[in-house]
Amino acid sequence: MRFSSDIQELVRSRVKGMSLEAPFYKAPEIHDLDIEAIFAQHWVFVAVEPELPEPGDCITVQIGAASVLILRGDDMGIRAFHNVCRHRGAKLVDEAATTIGNIVCRYHGWTYNEDGDLILAEHMGADFDKSCHGLKTVHVRSLAGLIFICLAENAPEDFEEMARVIEPYLAPHDVANCKVAHTYDLIEEGNWKFTLENNRECYHCEGTHPQLTIPLSEFGFGFSVDDVDERRSEDVNNYMAAVERDHARWEANGLPSIEEERLSNVTGFRTMRLPLMGEGESHTLDTKVASKKLLGELADPKLGGLSFWTHPNSWHHFMSDHIVTFSVLPLAPNKTLLRTTWLVHKDAIEGQDYNLDNLKQVWKMTNHQDAELVRLAQLGVEQSAYEPGPYSQYTEPHVEAFCSWYLERLEAHLQASQPMIAAE
Amino acid sequence: MRFSSDIQELVRSRVKGMSLEAPFYKAPEIHDLDIEAIFAQHWVFVAVEPELPEPGDCITVQIGAASVLILRGDDMGIRAFHNVCRHRGAKLVDEAATTIGNIVCRYHGWTYNEDGDLILAEHMGADFDKSCHGLKTVHVRSLAGLIFICLAENAPEDFEEMARVIEPYLAPHDVANCKVAHTYDLIEEGNWKFTLENNRECYHCEGTHPQLTIPLSEFGFGFSVDDVDERRSEDVNNYMAAVERDHARWEANGLPSIEEERLSNVTGFRTMRLPLMGEGESHTLDTKVASKKLLGELADPKLGGLSFWTHPNSWHHFMSDHIVTFSVLPLAPNKTLLRTTWLVHKDAIEGQDYNLDNLKQVWKMTNHQDAELVRLAQLGVEQSAYEPGPYSQYTEPHVEAFCSWYLERLEAHLQASQPMIAAE
Amino acid sequence: MRFSSDIQELVRSRVKGMSLEAPFYKAPEIHDLDIEAIFAQHWVFVAVEPELPEPGDCITVQIGAASVLILRGDDMGIRAFHNVCRHRGAKLVDEAATTIGNIVCRYHGWTYNEDGDLILAEHMGADFDKSCHGLKTVHVRSLAGLIFICLAENAPEDFEEMARVIEPYLAPHDVANCKVAHTYDLIEEGNWKFTLENNRECYHCEGTHPQLTIPLSEFGFGFSVDDVDERRSEDVNNYMAAVERDHARWEANGLPSIEEERLSNVTGFRTMRLPLMGEGESHTLDTKVASKKLLGELADPKLGGLSFWTHPNSWHHFMSDHIVTFSVLPLAPNKTLLRTTWLVHKDAIEGQDYNLDNLKQVWKMTNHQDAELVRLAQLGVEQSAYEPGPYSQYTEPHVEAFCSWYLERLEAHLQASQPMIAAE
Repeated sequence: MRFSSDIQELVRSRVKGMSLEAPFYKAPEIHDLDIEAIFAQHWVFVAVEPELPEPGDCITVQIGAASVLILRGDDMGIRAFHNVCRHRGAKLVDEAATTIGNIVCRYHGWTYNEDGDLILAEHMGADFDKSCHGLKTVHVRSLAGLIFICLAENAPEDFEEMARVIEPYLAPHDVANCKVAHTYDLIEEGNWKFTLENNRECYHCEGTHPQLTIPLSEFGFGFSVDDVDERRSEDVNNYMAAVERDHARWEANGLPSIEEERLSNVTGFRTMRLPLMGEGESHTLDTKVASKKLLGELADPKLGGLSFWTHPNSWHHFMSDHIVTFSVLPLAPNKTLLRTTWLVHKDAIEGQDYNLDNLKQVWKMTNHQDAELVRLAQLGVEQSAYEPGPYSQYTEPHVEAFCSWYLERLEAHLQASQPMIAAE
Repeated sequence: MRFSSDIQELVRSRVKGMSLEAPFYKAPEIHDLDIEAIFAQHWVFVAVEPELPEPGDCITVQIGAASVLILRGDDMGIRAFHNVCRHRGAKLVDEAATTIGNIVCRYHGWTYNEDGDLILAEHMGADFDKSCHGLKTVHVRSLAGLIFICLAENAPEDFEEMARVIEPYLAPHDVANCKVAHTYDLIEEGNWKFTLENNRECYHCEGTHPQLTIPLSEFGFGFSVDDVDERRSEDVNNYMAAVERDHARWEANGLPSIEEERLSNVTGFRTMRLPLMGEGESHTLDTKVASKKLLGELADPKLGGLSFWTHPNSWHHFMSDHIVTFSVLPLAPNKTLLRTTWLVHKDAIEGQDYNLDNLKQVWKMTNHQDAELVRLAQLGVEQSAYEPGPYSQYTEPHVEAFCSWYLERLEAHLQASQPMIAAE
Repeated sequence: MRFSSDIQELVRSRVKGMSLEAPFYKAPEIHDLDIEAIFAQHWVFVAVEPELPEPGDCITVQIGAASVLILRGDDMGIRAFHNVCRHRGAKLVDEAATTIGNIVCRYHGWTYNEDGDLILAEHMGADFDKSCHGLKTVHVRSLAGLIFICLAENAPEDFEEMARVIEPYLAPHDVANCKVAHTYDLIEEGNWKFTLENNRECYHCEGTHPQLTIPLSEFGFGFSVDDVDERRSEDVNNYMAAVERDHARWEANGLPSIEEERLSNVTGFRTMRLPLMGEGESHTLDTKVASKKLLGELADPKLGGLSFWTHPNSWHHFMSDHIVTFSVLPLAPNKTLLRTTWLVHKDAIEGQDYNLDNLKQVWKMTNHQDAELVRLAQLGVEQSAYEPGPYSQYTEPHVEAFCSWYLERLEAHLQASQPMIAAE
């Protein structure tokens, strides 16, 4: 595992349709490569605009060894910088979220404005050229209020394709006029790819997620006809009827309802509307809306769920009354941060329009149930006896799609950086 | 230390009669090799049969990167499997001990029967061959109730020699009709070989173990005549008298009493009966039996102690009234699990036939005293100034025997796996 | 970073006047090299004589992988040994400070006298030669009561030059007749060089140390004339006047007052007297002496501060009434022990002659303020975007001097050990 040729061999020898070899989930070298080739080269979802409502609002995000400072400027534009002073390298903003005027280093007082220009540096003498010591910038884009950053020098251009396709789906939910009702950080004891793989199938839902599956049918995520017995046959028919019913409803409300899937794009993504069963309105225990104040101009609570998945690290569920976004960031080969954010209309009043416990309950429980599966998957792959097993072609095609995308992106990176690595 | 040739050089350059070079106790590479060459290739003591009295009773044991599930079947036979699902590799049984029917994976419900056969896997389609996806088996043997497992493809065959020699010694203590009175896990802050070396001599007993040495004479473990002064001379004579007295008693009770030693076997072992001094009956503070209910058909409480040591990781003390077994498992170069289990007759009633505190007191104290010495030994060997020192030929021959066996087994493994390692 | 040639390249490619490249602060290989090339080859300040006032008093100090036992003998001389038994290598003295007669190993009772000679080892037989198994010695020197040790086989000889120059400065403070009033261990979350670099400039003082700068002027540590505005101009003039006033006072008291600087010596050092502003007497919040009992024969409380800095790991402030010494020891690439010791006259009585809180307050606060800067510096250098930035030639020349010395010493060591490393 010492040399990139070993990793390349491992990438190439993968058998399609089978889970990945153990080193992908536990080798420190591959964790480092994941940061370098995946998280530092692609558009990564890190926050939502309502986290920075006012000029001077600032958050910091850690991606591998990069701390990024994201700032809303006086012109309401969003900027991102590497969070490190150009003098002796101290970290500039140590808080997760704060409000600032200029960016002042606490060590020797070097001061940068909101565009990252160095505007004050004492005792450096008359010859010192401040203009060479501005902060280093990071690419940042908002997709209908979802903030993505890219650490690469040249960010993948097909972000525009994703934006063009997806914005019409998200726009009616009007993220700009939302507020953050709750944020929950869960550190999962497994590799980040286990968190993603778990998210890309619902094969495990029936046995694991009693709350989530009250309004949500597992059959929306695929099944094998061989396993549809009498009881299930009725469930499948119910699901099919709900799909037909809701497609009509979506079109009547002017909402795009076609499934869009570009999972092999560099900036891979997929969106799909899923009906909620029966009288279901939202992802809550009683399946009713969690917030009385519907989002944007929406008037019909029964819009089902709009799901949006992106490679490498996010998924999002948009309901008529609230939005839940998920950002996945690797912390170590066996440690992953899952940040969940619940958004409601900015005018919704807690205790009156919504009850916070009710709002967050289903996904908080679901996250913890998934975290337990991720933990068991990690414990399995750390065993000497682990070997890749077969994915179901019926219920796990999106897991396969994620793994294929991941390996292709690794391969592309390894080829592009070949000379550099050979010289290591 | 990067290449196996360095380790081989280190193995070969060892001076007989001297403690090992520092890397054997602290290098991560040698820790990994110890797992691979010693713990994954030899018979390792992990449990006693009374831990799994009923069909469906199941325990899990971690040896290096292998989690092993040990199960009693409906036919009362004991089976062992690698504890990992053949689908996406989740760990199957996460508990240390439980009772199960079939083995059901919590991730997607794949189900195995008690023989490890895959009997249920939904959504895999009509073509899927379940018979190729059964659990991987692990060798398991019970020696008079002591459970040993071996992770190697081909387990060492001389386990049979040990079983043949040792069973007559252990049988009278009738482990099958014992129950576990107490289990105590102690994590020692030192390399596992320090735990073993400490166990293989009593040179340290006089200064360290005031409780253990009430009935047990240090002279049973060797001494230099040069150091036998007047006071000690009397102790030695007392010990010699006790040996003579007890050998007669053992033979009268039909118990084999010859010392057996096959420490250079692949499955190396040794057994010896040690008299308890004076009126001593058992390893307790008052030297009386801890449990009124003697084991098996035994009727005489004054049988001394029968000790049984095995390479690489166990020792056991059998008294007339109770048994104490010790299993040593490496957790890290400087961290070792010592599991101690106390057994009494299954019909003995706590509070009536035995007092638990009294039963476990001597060995709990002794374990902690030894753990402190292991900690100091580790702190020493981690110093740059450490160099191997001389073993006493009188009081440390079994430490030397353990080290010799260990190095021979490493050497054998390194030679056998040469081509694989050269290609690393 | 795997091979010493990479490190050598990194050492040689350094741009003068710029902060060091990131690996110097975070690479485990360079941490190991720092221990080997810097801390094991140079004179390291570890303690003061008042910590061992009586024969048999003993302290232990950990430098990298070496535990050193420092002992005052019956002849009042100070000895230092590697703290490891020559039998099976157990650590001998586990306490930070204790009083002992002979040095007795707790494992098997091997016993050494105060000169490190093995005087008792049981059960080793008649042929065993005790004289070959004495403790390994470590170089130790006291400079006017400050204890330095050197782990190298051949200790740098220019310690004598430092002793000759510095003793006249320190002697009037009479360390031998001091007592330890307080010791404070602070573990800083950064590389040891950040702790040193922080100590070698006061550019950060104005923004960071409100307590320290009550009596102490930042202008004693350099400034750029370009940044001296009207307000500051007055401060500078005040400082200049204080320097003139105090130089006269020092000479009148018979105290050497010339600044001495040998920062490129192998045993690099520097000393300087700094005036305390206004009526300032000592490093306290009210700027008055913390202890009524002045040190040695000193009679004038207003002697300012005498500072003494040594490469690689110490600084010391001597006032008329008390002394503060600082010893820096690396624990990990990002973890450093800063031990601060406050000394007062041995006859000073707590609560009467001095108040302990008042004595330690300024430097305890200052240490914590600096630790926070060291933490931010480490967080910065661990970021992928860090790159070396420029030192101020006015306020950071001693940081530059420290870095130059450090790299020269690394280079010297790498060249001397070339063949050994090439063979790795």
